[in-house]
Amino acid sequence: MRFPLLASLLAVLAAGPALADDSLRDSAKKLFEPIPDTAPQLPGEPSTPEKLALGKMLYFDPRISESHELSCSACHDLGMGGGDGRASSTARSWQLAGRKSQTVLNAVFNKTLFFDGRASDLKDQVLRSVMAFPGAMQKTRGGPTIFNPADANPAKAHAVEFLKGVPGYVDAFNKAFPGDPNPVTYDNAARAIAVFETTLITPGAPFDLWLKGDDAALGESQKAGLKLFVDKGCSGCHNGVNLGGASFERFGVVHNPGPEILPTDDWGRYAITKNLADKYVFRVQELRNVELNPPYFHSGRVWDLKKAVEVMADAQLGVQLSDEESGKIADFLKSLTGRQPEVTLPHMPPMVATTPRPQP
Amino acid sequence: MRFPLLASLLAVLAAGPALADDSLRDSAKKLFEPIPDTAPQLPGEPSTPEKLALGKMLYFDPRISESHELSCSACHDLGMGGGDGRASSTARSWQLAGRKSQTVLNAVFNKTLFFDGRASDLKDQVLRSVMAFPGAMQKTRGGPTIFNPADANPAKAHAVEFLKGVPGYVDAFNKAFPGDPNPVTYDNAARAIAVFETTLITPGAPFDLWLKGDDAALGESQKAGLKLFVDKGCSGCHNGVNLGGASFERFGVVHNPGPEILPTDDWGRYAITKNLADKYVFRVQELRNVELNPPYFHSGRVWDLKKAVEVMADAQLGVQLSDEESGKIADFLKSLTGRQPEVTLPHMPPMVATTPRPQP
Repeated sequence: MRFPLLASLLAVLAAGPALADDSLRDSAKKLFEPIPDTAPQLPGEPSTPEKLALGKMLYFDPRISESHELSCSACHDLGMGGGDGRASSTARSWQLAGRKSQTVLNAVFNKTLFFDGRASDLKDQVLRSVMAFPGAMQKTRGGPTIFNPADANPAKAHAVEFLKGVPGYVDAFNKAFPGDPNPVTYDNAARAIAVFETTLITPGAPFDLWLKGDDAALGESQKAGLKLFVDKGCSGCHNGVNLGGASFERFGVVHNPGPEILPTDDWGRYAITKNLADKYVFRVQELRNVELNPPYFHSGRVWDLKKAVEVMADAQLGVQLSDEESGKIADFLKSLTGRQPEVTLPHMPPMVATTPRPQP
Repeated sequence: MRFPLLASLLAVLAAGPALADDSLRDSAKKLFEPIPDTAPQLPGEPSTPEKLALGKMLYFDPRISESHELSCSACHDLGMGGGDGRASSTARSWQLAGRKSQTVLNAVFNKTLFFDGRASDLKDQVLRSVMAFPGAMQKTRGGPTIFNPADANPAKAHAVEFLKGVPGYVDAFNKAFPGDPNPVTYDNAARAIAVFETTLITPGAPFDLWLKGDDAALGESQKAGLKLFVDKGCSGCHNGVNLGGASFERFGVVHNPGPEILPTDDWGRYAITKNLADKYVFRVQELRNVELNPPYFHSGRVWDLKKAVEVMADAQLGVQLSDEESGKIADFLKSLTGRQPEVTLPHMPPMVATTPRPQP
């Protein structure tokens, strides 16, 4: 080489952005983790092909609801980011559930589930959701009606009687729970659905590729957005593998958002704990695939991701973001969209003459 | 061989059932046809991978309905035989559509669609169904409200504005209809869905394997049921590739079924033709995959396939079937269940801040 000094200079210049990336990546790695490439196992609940196949059928089958109208996928649509894209999910008889559906994607990585954190894991979430199907999911003053999975409940009774009445399901439960003398139970149905849900993860997001060292996976605006996300304090709560889903916070730490965003009659976690300090406290939302899951907040009243970022910065941090800043953070958040699960629709076993029928 | 006569006798005995099959098969081949192994092409509407991909997204996307609640798959569930397993489909605001959903599987082979035959092909069916979404699908006296696809309609307007407001859909329409200066139209959406629906066929049913020469594909009771199906006269209307779907008949040719099965306020095809001779006339139901699609009849009041066979024999043919006869015919009908389509769920493009939002 005739100009060794120039070559060195060029090498340094070329490395410039990489050095900047390295520093940002070092901070980011302390806060965030990529989604793993393979589905995690639930503690004490090994996945088997038979359990998975059963869980998938149950996930898509509306007939486990009393009306035969509402399946898991009705509110957790795997073609639409794992939610339902509405401000409030719709329960039986077109009653509003009162809160937005949360995504099932990567839900296995959350420490609690539901906006009020009432479920401790995927199975618990399933047990509670099915029981809410008779139409009781609508919001009562202070929060939704809370069911105890151990209690008698018409929706739970229908689900079990229905499944016992379909020969194809009896066969599938026998295969999924070999050796269990009474395999068709409410609890086993929830176990199988939970196992299926562990597969609903979205690795390969641009942010994860970047975290692993691919500088080109994020655009400049996204990198600037990530820096703002950390520097302004968003990552104080939105961190870990799901960038949230691990803690609780009052909605309105610094400023209360208006009642159109924070309705005064939904008291959040207070409905569970009855602790006054938990009024208007909600589970910190996970931000994976957030671009696919408008509208935002438990009330589902904000449809624009950039606007949602501005509301959060003001309410939780007392920070007024400039238009440019919120735009960059929103750009960064779009880098959290991963590979969506490839799911082949299951074929559910048919009812026979004696199978319990839907209730109007 | 030491006993040539005995050998011949044994050969004749062994061939006995085959000879009986051949004779039955000869009659059957004059009446029925197997489902083809590959999807048919629509006249003037060549299938392309881009049109198929768009049609599949639209089929599963509830956001093309005004409420963002009702997709094609809500009433035509590909995991449940292509119908919805309810006595009446549920329209917006939990209103009853007033008639049972019909299967989309093999619908491409029907000559008309809807119980009153108001649609002439798949595209026409789509155009009319989407328009019925605002809740107007409920039955009015004499039959459902009939829409003209050319008319203005709020559901139609929402569907088009929504699709134009989603960048991912604009892109998909451009790819599916290259060269079209205004590709995002109501008509093009229906064309793409119709193309996707041509793939929803179920070849390989035991009956079809038997028709093609595999004697072992049907059990003895099923063969006896087929013979009864032909001899008693069922095949007079239920014939062709779909065993129905090609003609109209009055429900109650010989005896009127009671009003619980034939409600007096649904006048069937009369609502379309205004011809008094068409009162209580309905499209002859196709019988492919009938086992997967209870409850039966337009009123959806009969859940037992065997009972449905008895009702039909009495009402249409004036024949009182014995318990054994209706059982055998029901057994035969179960041999019409083919390979269900393997469909991977599409990932629908996300809404952006400016996309039209759902209406309550």
